[in-house]
Amino acid sequence: MSQTRNESTNGPQDGTRRQPVSIPFSSRLLEGRALAQDVWSIFNAANLPSDCLNLGQGYMNFAPPKWITDAATEALNTVGANHYSHPKGRPRLRKAIKQFYGSQFNRDLDVESEILVTSGANEGQYSVFVAFLEHGDEVIMFEPFFDQYLPSVTFNGGKPVYVPLHPPSRDITKPTSNDWTIDFEELRAAVTPRTKIIIVNTPHNPVGKVFTRTELEKIAALAEEFNLLVMADEVYDCLVFDNKEHVRIATLPGMWERTVTVGSAGKSFAATGWRVGWLIGPASIISPTLAATTRIVFCSNSPLQEAAAAGLEQAVEHQFFENQLKEYQERRDIFVDALDQLGVTYTLPEGTYFVLMDSSSVKFPDDYPFPKTVLGRGRDFRACWFIAMEIGVSSIPVSEFYCEEHMSLGENYIRFSFCKDLDTLKAAAARLQNLKKYLA
Amino acid sequence: MSQTRNESTNGPQDGTRRQPVSIPFSSRLLEGRALAQDVWSIFNAANLPSDCLNLGQGYMNFAPPKWITDAATEALNTVGANHYSHPKGRPRLRKAIKQFYGSQFNRDLDVESEILVTSGANEGQYSVFVAFLEHGDEVIMFEPFFDQYLPSVTFNGGKPVYVPLHPPSRDITKPTSNDWTIDFEELRAAVTPRTKIIIVNTPHNPVGKVFTRTELEKIAALAEEFNLLVMADEVYDCLVFDNKEHVRIATLPGMWERTVTVGSAGKSFAATGWRVGWLIGPASIISPTLAATTRIVFCSNSPLQEAAAAGLEQAVEHQFFENQLKEYQERRDIFVDALDQLGVTYTLPEGTYFVLMDSSSVKFPDDYPFPKTVLGRGRDFRACWFIAMEIGVSSIPVSEFYCEEHMSLGENYIRFSFCKDLDTLKAAAARLQNLKKYLA
Ligand SMILES: Cc1ncc(COP(=O)(O)O)c(C=O)c1O
Ligand SMILES: Cc1ncc(COP(=O)(O)O)c(C=O)c1O
Repeated sequence: MSQTRNESTNGPQDGTRRQPVSIPFSSRLLEGRALAQDVWSIFNAANLPSDCLNLGQGYMNFAPPKWITDAATEALNTVGANHYSHPKGRPRLRKAIKQFYGSQFNRDLDVESEILVTSGANEGQYSVFVAFLEHGDEVIMFEPFFDQYLPSVTFNGGKPVYVPLHPPSRDITKPTSNDWTIDFEELRAAVTPRTKIIIVNTPHNPVGKVFTRTELEKIAALAEEFNLLVMADEVYDCLVFDNKEHVRIATLPGMWERTVTVGSAGKSFAATGWRVGWLIGPASIISPTLAATTRIVFCSNSPLQEAAAAGLEQAVEHQFFENQLKEYQERRDIFVDALDQLGVTYTLPEGTYFVLMDSSSVKFPDDYPFPKTVLGRGRDFRACWFIAMEIGVSSIPVSEFYCEEHMSLGENYIRFSFCKDLDTLKAAAARLQNLKKYLA
Repeated sequence: MSQTRNESTNGPQDGTRRQPVSIPFSSRLLEGRALAQDVWSIFNAANLPSDCLNLGQGYMNFAPPKWITDAATEALNTVGANHYSHPKGRPRLRKAIKQFYGSQFNRDLDVESEILVTSGANEGQYSVFVAFLEHGDEVIMFEPFFDQYLPSVTFNGGKPVYVPLHPPSRDITKPTSNDWTIDFEELRAAVTPRTKIIIVNTPHNPVGKVFTRTELEKIAALAEEFNLLVMADEVYDCLVFDNKEHVRIATLPGMWERTVTVGSAGKSFAATGWRVGWLIGPASIISPTLAATTRIVFCSNSPLQEAAAAGLEQAVEHQFFENQLKEYQERRDIFVDALDQLGVTYTLPEGTYFVLMDSSSVKFPDDYPFPKTVLGRGRDFRACWFIAMEIGVSSIPVSEFYCEEHMSLGENYIRFSFCKDLDTLKAAAARLQNLKKYLA
């Protein structure tokens, strides 16, 4: 953690001779790495060579489909869609969510009490923590974890409890994300009387793992035994490859009542900057979460809710998700072919747009001019930096997605995002071959 | 407060014979009226006669200027503006804020450390509370207060402390918002060793008061004496009438370092549904608040940030704020002329788009068929309901903007919003004359 000096560093700038002001910030910022320089800033394009191909951050370098942005424009040309929406979300979007997802949940979803539109999946998840965490409540998350979970939990008095996904054994020459495994004894041992929530992110960022039915059934059994709320983060639900079955934990017997499922228009429609997401779950979870989100943001932006509604309404007619999946599968294949050609070990993802590469075979000089920000972190920080500088392809170190104690489990892995156009991916594939001379 | 039953009411709906699930929500929802049926739902258009003219809710029934929505469309046609923005806000918008507001703050604002774009003013204010409140810290707010403050404070462990604005004396036949006064002894008495923040909302919702330089100087002196953070909620800064001076408390000597000023694209550009706002202040306040907002929403929506930037960039060339102010002044005058004609007492607002009418002279039958939601609340709830049903113009009861203890101070007042087109206002003006027969 850095920047924890809890006082103003600015002197008076108005010509008076007052004492420097010092208003201490909340101690909650001292937890959950909230003030640490995050990995996104370190590996920000601005710090890397200008021609570096950005496969670090998980957003697309292509636009949402024109028929969806057109719907946004249409909304902007009305009066109502420029003004406050109902905190629950715009009726049109809630109806579209009901219609699109209802059958996937085997339910006639109630648009008034079982669907909540949020300002991105992120704010939806934050609102669940506000609504449900009591000081000292524990939240189980599998490592590596989406880094926003940690401070979202600690800001609201919660205590994160980490259960690792174990990396594939070294014997497996061509591991897939399914080779990242849960030790269920470890999971059970992590449950305490204070455990309140378990986060199940499937398909999983950054591993690409699509949790199997058996895994989910075991998690579900534990959730029932200990009366846990399950946060099913399924923002990559439309990105499951090779006809792998994507099971929604909410649909397992008895699980609807304790599960809130998280979705994201940003991930679904290549529109990460729209900040529209949704929660689907029973009224007993949605209603307190509505009370929270209403106070946090009041409501989500209206024009892009209308556009997201159009996206869901017309997805079938445009065969949008089928085509998008094919495109992503092609992107994935170009990228992993390059890694095969290079001869490094990586995890073939069954879902999401991330690939974890084992960087332990990449040798870099110890006296390489690394910046201070990557020194003193995991080896993967240096590997990412070296590859970005020497090869011109950026990635993200995976140890950032582990707690301090388990960081070494992730230290070999670096994450590439293949949510990029084919030209970028082909150029990256070609550049990556230059890594060969650094392989042990 | 209602709906505080802290358990699921839903039985299993999946055909199994399990016990109903009960996952208790956080006790923080039991404070700050977070679960009470709020005034906005009670006086929602859906509950009122379909032809009722909606002067209740504070959003416009007209669209933002076309040259600004065109900028949104333009942004939607790019790639980058559909994707994540920097959590600080898009560089273009931060630069536009610097350029537009810098001179009003007599400062060369630093776009990296002194400006933060948020998801509406609301989420910006929430983030300040997350960033600065320690459990038990007190936040002073003047009553009546913008109702979102209360739960935003209590959700983050803060304790609201209320200081009333005293209504105009009955002797004043034509009061203005300047006749709502602060008792500075009362204010000083409200400060304790736990006081951390004071909220100064000017121009003030719902009173319309534009705090005078003298009042702000006295508040500033107290803030300095007790080392308070000042949250200057100035979302109505572009709506100050009659050439009244609008003083920014951040510009008073020594105050920059302890003041965060809140702005809203929604209020400025008639686009309340865009959810774009901003905070301006010293790095010592902006930096912890950035850490908070980054976790809550990650970033604000990108296309409408671009549009808000265009709005600020081109406001001068379009004489936008001058013209908008004239339009609002005309709206205000139409509305208050109607009240003059009717012969009721009201507060002439110096700013904002709200008018408080004294409803104590409106007589309604005690056995009028009021719904349960308005019974057992202040008399103003019944007055609003009666006027909406009988006259066809909706308004909002002002006692909702007071704490329980001081509610009776607001009980005579009802709030009309005149952020409506001229036809609506003229129709409302005509209908309001029908109140005459109910005046005592
Ligand atoms: C696992 C996971 N959950 C949630 C989110 C947040 O999604 P949104 O952009 O809709 O807030 C992300 C974004 O990267 C993610 O990877
Ligand atoms: C005094 C005050 N502050 C803040 C806000 C919130 O503004 P925004 O819509 O930008 O969140 C409002 C909205 O009504 C308000 O009246």
